[in-house]
Amino acid sequence: MKLFNKRYHQPGTRPGELAEPVSDVFSLDLLDYDASAISVKNDIDVHDCRPFIKNSNVTWIHVQGDPTHDALVTLAKGLDIHDLYIEDVVNSGQRPKVELNEEQIFAILSLPVHNNNQVHIEQVSLFLTQNTVVSFCSGDFNPFQQIVTRLQSGVGKLRRRKADYLFYNLIDTVIDYGFPLLETYSERIQTLEDELLDTPDKNVLSQVHKLRRELLLIRRRLWPQREMVNEILRDEENTQITPETKMHFRDCHDHVISIMELLETYHEMTSGLMELYMTSVSLKLNDVMKVLTIIATLFIPPTFIVGVYGMNFDPLVSKLNMPELQWEYGYIAVWVVILLMICGMLAFFKKHKWI
Amino acid sequence: MKLFNKRYHQPGTRPGELAEPVSDVFSLDLLDYDASAISVKNDIDVHDCRPFIKNSNVTWIHVQGDPTHDALVTLAKGLDIHDLYIEDVVNSGQRPKVELNEEQIFAILSLPVHNNNQVHIEQVSLFLTQNTVVSFCSGDFNPFQQIVTRLQSGVGKLRRRKADYLFYNLIDTVIDYGFPLLETYSERIQTLEDELLDTPDKNVLSQVHKLRRELLLIRRRLWPQREMVNEILRDEENTQITPETKMHFRDCHDHVISIMELLETYHEMTSGLMELYMTSVSLKLNDVMKVLTIIATLFIPPTFIVGVYGMNFDPLVSKLNMPELQWEYGYIAVWVVILLMICGMLAFFKKHKWI
Amino acid sequence: MKLFNKRYHQPGTRPGELAEPVSDVFSLDLLDYDASAISVKNDIDVHDCRPFIKNSNVTWIHVQGDPTHDALVTLAKGLDIHDLYIEDVVNSGQRPKVELNEEQIFAILSLPVHNNNQVHIEQVSLFLTQNTVVSFCSGDFNPFQQIVTRLQSGVGKLRRRKADYLFYNLIDTVIDYGFPLLETYSERIQTLEDELLDTPDKNVLSQVHKLRRELLLIRRRLWPQREMVNEILRDEENTQITPETKMHFRDCHDHVISIMELLETYHEMTSGLMELYMTSVSLKLNDVMKVLTIIATLFIPPTFIVGVYGMNFDPLVSKLNMPELQWEYGYIAVWVVILLMICGMLAFFKKHKWI
Amino acid sequence: MKLFNKRYHQPGTRPGELAEPVSDVFSLDLLDYDASAISVKNDIDVHDCRPFIKNSNVTWIHVQGDPTHDALVTLAKGLDIHDLYIEDVVNSGQRPKVELNEEQIFAILSLPVHNNNQVHIEQVSLFLTQNTVVSFCSGDFNPFQQIVTRLQSGVGKLRRRKADYLFYNLIDTVIDYGFPLLETYSERIQTLEDELLDTPDKNVLSQVHKLRRELLLIRRRLWPQREMVNEILRDEENTQITPETKMHFRDCHDHVISIMELLETYHEMTSGLMELYMTSVSLKLNDVMKVLTIIATLFIPPTFIVGVYGMNFDPLVSKLNMPELQWEYGYIAVWVVILLMICGMLAFFKKHKWI
Amino acid sequence: MKLFNKRYHQPGTRPGELAEPVSDVFSLDLLDYDASAISVKNDIDVHDCRPFIKNSNVTWIHVQGDPTHDALVTLAKGLDIHDLYIEDVVNSGQRPKVELNEEQIFAILSLPVHNNNQVHIEQVSLFLTQNTVVSFCSGDFNPFQQIVTRLQSGVGKLRRRKADYLFYNLIDTVIDYGFPLLETYSERIQTLEDELLDTPDKNVLSQVHKLRRELLLIRRRLWPQREMVNEILRDEENTQITPETKMHFRDCHDHVISIMELLETYHEMTSGLMELYMTSVSLKLNDVMKVLTIIATLFIPPTFIVGVYGMNFDPLVSKLNMPELQWEYGYIAVWVVILLMICGMLAFFKKHKWI
Repeated sequence: MKLFNKRYHQPGTRPGELAEPVSDVFSLDLLDYDASAISVKNDIDVHDCRPFIKNSNVTWIHVQGDPTHDALVTLAKGLDIHDLYIEDVVNSGQRPKVELNEEQIFAILSLPVHNNNQVHIEQVSLFLTQNTVVSFCSGDFNPFQQIVTRLQSGVGKLRRRKADYLFYNLIDTVIDYGFPLLETYSERIQTLEDELLDTPDKNVLSQVHKLRRELLLIRRRLWPQREMVNEILRDEENTQITPETKMHFRDCHDHVISIMELLETYHEMTSGLMELYMTSVSLKLNDVMKVLTIIATLFIPPTFIVGVYGMNFDPLVSKLNMPELQWEYGYIAVWVVILLMICGMLAFFKKHKWI
Repeated sequence: MKLFNKRYHQPGTRPGELAEPVSDVFSLDLLDYDASAISVKNDIDVHDCRPFIKNSNVTWIHVQGDPTHDALVTLAKGLDIHDLYIEDVVNSGQRPKVELNEEQIFAILSLPVHNNNQVHIEQVSLFLTQNTVVSFCSGDFNPFQQIVTRLQSGVGKLRRRKADYLFYNLIDTVIDYGFPLLETYSERIQTLEDELLDTPDKNVLSQVHKLRRELLLIRRRLWPQREMVNEILRDEENTQITPETKMHFRDCHDHVISIMELLETYHEMTSGLMELYMTSVSLKLNDVMKVLTIIATLFIPPTFIVGVYGMNFDPLVSKLNMPELQWEYGYIAVWVVILLMICGMLAFFKKHKWI
Repeated sequence: MKLFNKRYHQPGTRPGELAEPVSDVFSLDLLDYDASAISVKNDIDVHDCRPFIKNSNVTWIHVQGDPTHDALVTLAKGLDIHDLYIEDVVNSGQRPKVELNEEQIFAILSLPVHNNNQVHIEQVSLFLTQNTVVSFCSGDFNPFQQIVTRLQSGVGKLRRRKADYLFYNLIDTVIDYGFPLLETYSERIQTLEDELLDTPDKNVLSQVHKLRRELLLIRRRLWPQREMVNEILRDEENTQITPETKMHFRDCHDHVISIMELLETYHEMTSGLMELYMTSVSLKLNDVMKVLTIIATLFIPPTFIVGVYGMNFDPLVSKLNMPELQWEYGYIAVWVVILLMICGMLAFFKKHKWI
Repeated sequence: MKLFNKRYHQPGTRPGELAEPVSDVFSLDLLDYDASAISVKNDIDVHDCRPFIKNSNVTWIHVQGDPTHDALVTLAKGLDIHDLYIEDVVNSGQRPKVELNEEQIFAILSLPVHNNNQVHIEQVSLFLTQNTVVSFCSGDFNPFQQIVTRLQSGVGKLRRRKADYLFYNLIDTVIDYGFPLLETYSERIQTLEDELLDTPDKNVLSQVHKLRRELLLIRRRLWPQREMVNEILRDEENTQITPETKMHFRDCHDHVISIMELLETYHEMTSGLMELYMTSVSLKLNDVMKVLTIIATLFIPPTFIVGVYGMNFDPLVSKLNMPELQWEYGYIAVWVVILLMICGMLAFFKKHKWI
Repeated sequence: MKLFNKRYHQPGTRPGELAEPVSDVFSLDLLDYDASAISVKNDIDVHDCRPFIKNSNVTWIHVQGDPTHDALVTLAKGLDIHDLYIEDVVNSGQRPKVELNEEQIFAILSLPVHNNNQVHIEQVSLFLTQNTVVSFCSGDFNPFQQIVTRLQSGVGKLRRRKADYLFYNLIDTVIDYGFPLLETYSERIQTLEDELLDTPDKNVLSQVHKLRRELLLIRRRLWPQREMVNEILRDEENTQITPETKMHFRDCHDHVISIMELLETYHEMTSGLMELYMTSVSLKLNDVMKVLTIIATLFIPPTFIVGVYGMNFDPLVSKLNMPELQWEYGYIAVWVVILLMICGMLAFFKKHKWI
């Protein structure tokens, strides 16, 4: 996960300037439905959307990937989307936000995508206007597959309601991708917790650090969604969101708060893991030092004693020069002294609970 | 206590979809009372509740465990409960909240259950409507046993008042389960504090960590109850809660704040315990190192000296080769030097307060 | 100071239930005064209070200790005090708060009592109604002795004013007990700071920890008093507090804020002490390790060298076997080499500022 | 980056006193344009500006560097700028702020300049009045070069709009200089993260500290810009900012929030780096101590044993004096014992995962 | 700087009681001026002030030091100052605050005085009433010398304006004393930062701690001034402060916020210094341990080897007893083995970048 992922222009560039598309690879799908019928067009050309937009059915245009400027501008003109919104769609890495006008709603969301133990954030931009919803999703993972299936599979609430209910479903779906992500994090934390106390090695350290960093970055990207849903709930100007849909948005608000609280809790927990790691390392050091001290303390004094009787003072010169060497029980006495010393030390260690 | 305990649907699922019940084991008890009479039905079938709901007495239906979809839907229809509320009852692990309409109140609470030194959170969902209170409690511990006893044992305030007072009593009871929990925590903290300074071993470390983690998770689950009670107090739309009951809710508000403040204090204290642990480990390391240093410093220099006189330079070759070995008082002089060195070191350690 | 000191009922108990008094030991004093006269009744029976309450003088009833239920109920009836307030008086360990009605004010305060280096919190409950102030204080320390003296000693402002001014004086007195407490803490912090840098031993550690813990607990108990005084200042409903008394409450507000800011500062400072302690322990460890390293580095290499010349290779077998032993200046050369090594090491230590 | 960079007067100095210019080196450029024509005057004298200010075109005066008091006073008189604003322009190191009057807007911004791995903050002061924008920028880096180019290169939106749109473009440009700066920081953090785990040496430590310090100082200088843009958005008194320009300021608001959130995230991350560093150092210490302990534990006990058989007890005096020396397999037995000890130790280390 | 510096009465003392003056040493200066004339009276008696107060000129009475109760009461009566304000003047160590009435303003400020590397806080109390300003300043440093000079030196704005402008100038002066103080702190931080990484000894530690403590205490004393200036700005009741003076107070507000932000930044930075210190100590420990480990690892194994050949096994008893001693190249072989071991170790250290 990159620390810096905002695409920006050089300071002083014209406002509304579009960034160059990175890949130009994109697909445009269109669903047009009411309670009685549905037509699905995959990989449709942008110019062929117009008749669907104009009819009275709900039209949903989903743009996956990195659209060309041409396609964007055509779409923007057909639906009367403001230049600055189009700039936000292209310059990915935007903060989630919502712009509510009387007849239009423009929303930007962060979609956490979890892939091979790598997490990254894709930007989902949603635009709701008279009967039409346009959704843009960067990257190549389409988060709305299940909604397409629900629309096609039968006449449910989603088919009977208007575009605002589809709009809510899209937002709710993007936000709910937080839950499986958090479940993965909870498992990673639990695994690390166990490893920490057993083997606090460098690998675990870098994993804890990576986890903390990821949670920090994801929190920053998801946090504004709370405020976003809140703004939709409080809004009194827009005419499209019905009271019934608003009640669903309240449910969505609960989800977004749950996700943020879990993220906060996990972040705090990971900071705790770092402290736990440090303490665990200190404990290990204590263990290592105890071993060293026990060994050194047991053997250094006896080594001195045997050193004494390795001296070469000449017992012939004087009676005072190492008479012990000539003593019958000298050798045994030395062993007795040494064993007493060792036992004393062991008793000391036992008392201080080192062994 | 699990890090992640929210039951959720795959992103894109239909809103209002009910999660599969885990066990299907549940019981449904009904109490129907006024000041003059009370009738209690245990393990009643959901379809037999209707006549009680319709009469003018206060009716309390308590559902313990994991109800089937059938039972829930029947109950919801009979009492006019919204789909999204029923979803919240089933998808346990919800944030505490309250939804206040003119004629109904729906509340979700977190019930901390303390069992064999394990703490877990059960979800209690309460629904108040005209004369009727429905309570759902996950798990198999029924927190309301004492209230049933109070209702049955005589004609107190609880029997004379309306359903809103029963509703308050249920909320108050769930919140008050925080106090015995906190008392347990205070004892655990006190025990750990004592152990910490004496024997900062791995076991204590993992207990401190476990405690901090539990407090973090419980705080997250109980915190929203503060806001919840506050919302009931501020509410001016609902017609059922009488001013007299509101005064009781103010008392309840004091309790919920006391609990949160204690949780905060304990959490901060546990963070302090972690620091205390680290410092205590460092102190122990210092002790270990002092022992090592004292031993090494006392015996390494004398070992060098006796090593010197263990050298085999040939005194016959030259007068300069180890004349001490031939000296009458050589051996005694060596001992004197060694003892002086040791005394000097001991004085040094004394001065620096190491011994 | 206990971590958990709230007296609570089992969840599900009837609201308003009174806790059993712990000791039943209490005394009830009554002062009845106006500008011209004062009558003082010590250890008066609760039933004899009635005539004093009814007259137009200011009546102050002070209940010290742990009153019986009988006494409380009699008092409550005579003065029209609500059940829930009486419950709060008995279930000590309440959060400070104030309840303002049109004709009555009920306040709970935390009184820090400092006794033999032990701090504990007593609960003071105050009740102001038409011409009458009732004060309850748990424990056996009466904080209001000086006010009794002031009332008796002459006709000051306190005698000339109404009950609201007495009420203010009682609150101000309880709050002001924070100042001598804080002064004691400031001295303890200063003492610990000095000891920390000199002798960071276990005793100092547990004192720092105890101090931090006490400040945490006291902060929690005193904090709500800020809000409490604020509520009295903002109140516009109660008719008893005169503008002149309110001006005095503003002074009281300054005190309560000063106390909280000092508590915050001391708490932050004590956290700093813990860090300082840790660092000081690390510094000591460095010192210890330096001594060990210096000794080991000075003597281990020479020990190796003298070991070399303690080997018993037979110089007779070959010219290559330890010819140094036969060399005239061998012994002196060894000493020269050893002294050079030691000097080199000392220079190295000097350079790195270890000695 | 300096810790203290506010220029201030001695306390008690007359308010509005101008600080002595440091260098007196400055240049004054003027652009006068409407949709049809543009005239550019570089290094124009301040007295020659008057005719341009008076005409109905948009006039932009840019003062780069450290203007003399004379030039400032002349300009201030010509444009009716208040003394206190002029003081703020000269006493650089001001907090970003905006002062909105009905006809004038005065804004101070912080421009982060990144030069040879050194970051410093220059102060940009903007003044908008009827048709005229005056911009002051301390230092010698002109941040508005690209806007000059856009104005000269053709008739875009910037040429067609009024002075308020130019004013917005200048603010937006200064704010956007945050993005390249943040990108640099993200790279520095990433580099340090890698180095930390590998070689936690003193150099890395001082780099982490420097980074944290810089982020702290920059955050302080940029933070008030958030509030500043907010004030422009909320303003309802000033008549010059059109609704269309306000919509652009909302975009600018998004930028300023993104920058602050990234700064916060980076600051938190750098604190994490410090902890990571400490832990990494502890890990290294553990490694060092393990090596020492392994070596000491492997060789100290065998050294004792060989010491034993270096003793000179006289086997001739008694049969008890070191009979092993006379034993045929004595030497081999010693080696066997030593090798067994070493193997035992190695097994112990293996078991504890030290090797 | 003292931790506790509030002068307080015993709890229960009469409100408005004046603390005993500590020294009774004070001087009272009076300036009476309008645009045309000024008269200055130094060390004037308090009773002689009356005629100046009554005339229509601006009268400024400055009381330096610790006034007697007599002087204070006389002054208070002459100017109609409330008892509680006089109490605040005497009981120094008050929180900065402002009390705004329709005709009077009473303000308390904290003046940081920097003297011989010692910082302490003096209390400045200001009282503004009809045409008269009274200023009290504890201690013997008069902060307003420069303003006296400005008043005497000529007819500036200060002479032409009313008492409110003088009042603003006094407040502004006291607040601006924060800037030189902060500059000193920035230098101390910078010095400590350099010393930290080089020589993290006990002296530096206690300096960092002292700095952090001072910043904590000063922040507590200066913080309320922000709120104070804010209250003057928001006030709409007082009639003396003109809009022009209010505009100057806005400038003063910028200063007070700048000072608080710098204090916050410095405080955070000092906390960072403590961490840096700890890490630096750990790094030093690593260095020390590396030296020990290198020496021990280089010499302990060779010492064992030479110990082996110091054993006295009798080669005459058996061919198996130390045949190496009889080998022609034995001694040289031992040296070769030892040198190889040392080289191996050095290579190992090189590889792990220890040397």
